[in-house]
Amino acid sequence: MKRGKFIVVEGMEGAGKSSAITVIEELLKQYKIDFINTREPGGTPLAESLRDMVKSAEHEETLTQETELLLMYASRSQLLENRILPALERGQWVIGDRHDLSSRAYQGGGRQFDDKVIQAIADVTLKGFTPDLTLYLDIDPKLGLSRAQARGTLDRIEQEKFDFFTRVHDKYLELVSGDSSIQTVDASQSMAKVHQHIATVIGNYLQENA
Amino acid sequence: MKRGKFIVVEGMEGAGKSSAITVIEELLKQYKIDFINTREPGGTPLAESLRDMVKSAEHEETLTQETELLLMYASRSQLLENRILPALERGQWVIGDRHDLSSRAYQGGGRQFDDKVIQAIADVTLKGFTPDLTLYLDIDPKLGLSRAQARGTLDRIEQEKFDFFTRVHDKYLELVSGDSSIQTVDASQSMAKVHQHIATVIGNYLQENA
Ligand SMILES: Nc1ncnc2c1ncn2[C@@H]1O[C@H](COP(=O)(O)OP(=O)(O)O)[C@@H](O)[C@H]1O
Ligand SMILES: Nc1ncnc2c1ncn2[C@@H]1O[C@H](COP(=O)(O)OP(=O)(O)O)[C@@H](O)[C@H]1O
Ligand SMILES: [Mg+2]
Ligand SMILES: [Mg+2]
Repeated sequence: MKRGKFIVVEGMEGAGKSSAITVIEELLKQYKIDFINTREPGGTPLAESLRDMVKSAEHEETLTQETELLLMYASRSQLLENRILPALERGQWVIGDRHDLSSRAYQGGGRQFDDKVIQAIADVTLKGFTPDLTLYLDIDPKLGLSRAQARGTLDRIEQEKFDFFTRVHDKYLELVSGDSSIQTVDASQSMAKVHQHIATVIGNYLQENA
Repeated sequence: MKRGKFIVVEGMEGAGKSSAITVIEELLKQYKIDFINTREPGGTPLAESLRDMVKSAEHEETLTQETELLLMYASRSQLLENRILPALERGQWVIGDRHDLSSRAYQGGGRQFDDKVIQAIADVTLKGFTPDLTLYLDIDPKLGLSRAQARGTLDRIEQEKFDFFTRVHDKYLELVSGDSSIQTVDASQSMAKVHQHIATVIGNYLQENA
């Protein structure tokens, strides 16, 4: 049984990750590739409970940024062990709505945790596991937030000050530059153009790897 | 307002921590010292939810040891920020049923995480915060487990193989040796003798610090 591939879609709120994923799903179906979907934080019963804790604005006095960081990785550990790795080993592909890059950008850039601290926690949690392909949907934080706002009410993290999102965006750009496993898509374009670009990237990947 | 003191009671299951705490409470009351109690993991609504996750044997396929480690520190972060530090700043004392030493012993000794990994997570979570006084109740794991068993059903961690508890015990001994902020009490003695020893240690501490 050939091991599956882990394709991750990354980018800020409103970048169009959810809609990009529908495009990827269609292409995998055309290639008759069996796949599962994951989202982070979350994706297992325990990880979904952690997601609720991190996203809810209605918990106790303070949810510390240390707790936020640790819960993100606890969620990732559960998802990796109980969903992602078993699927890949069964030969299924996995389409991830966010993964480790989000923690680097949000907790590293947004919360300003030292890269070394995040690296130490990522090392022990992921043990070197990385996606096979990451699609990074790049969007100006203002545009992304306005799209997310139009979609509905904002969660605890989406309610951060604008500076936070500027730092997240800057960090994303820093992280994706020069990483050949990450393909950047200009997500400020029309949906048709964005989808076309995604279809090209995934189509090429499928030609080589399916 | 004089800052309060953080007294922690440590030791394996069945060592007699809960009963030691009642002795400490009595002494603090005699000195008219206002105090709060904490327990770890747990002690805030969010931290108690994390405690349930870590202790329950009925969650999804696997609770990874990485998740266990991360949730222990997330719980500790919430407790420190929302309970322990505010109390100490108000001048209250805090009596802790377990704290960081437990993670060093259980996740370090029991689960065999590298000390450096735990140190990195402890550093970012606790930022150098340490108890003022730790009472370590030393007990042979067999005796402790038999006391805990007599008390009721065992949780997920208490159901570990005996080797696990031997490693936890060895690690406790390694950690307490030569740390002058930790007082070791032989908890295999009769309850009367153990309580007498605790009363002496806490009595001396109160003479000097109350
Ligand atoms: N390229 C685009 N142009 C305009 N609107 C878009 C575009 N991509 C997505 N949207 C819309 O923006 C909103 C957020 O998109 P969504 O896919 O939910 O983003 P994400 O999952 O990254 O938060 C949705 O209402 C979606 O229809
Ligand atoms: N020194 C002792 N000798 C005998 N039994 C004890 C002693 N200390 C505690 N116990 C009993 O052992 C059980 C576990 O004690 P407990 O205080 O709950 O331990 P812990 O809180 O450390 O798990 C209880 O039933 C308690 O009454
Ligand atoms: Mg989405
Ligand atoms: Mg107890």
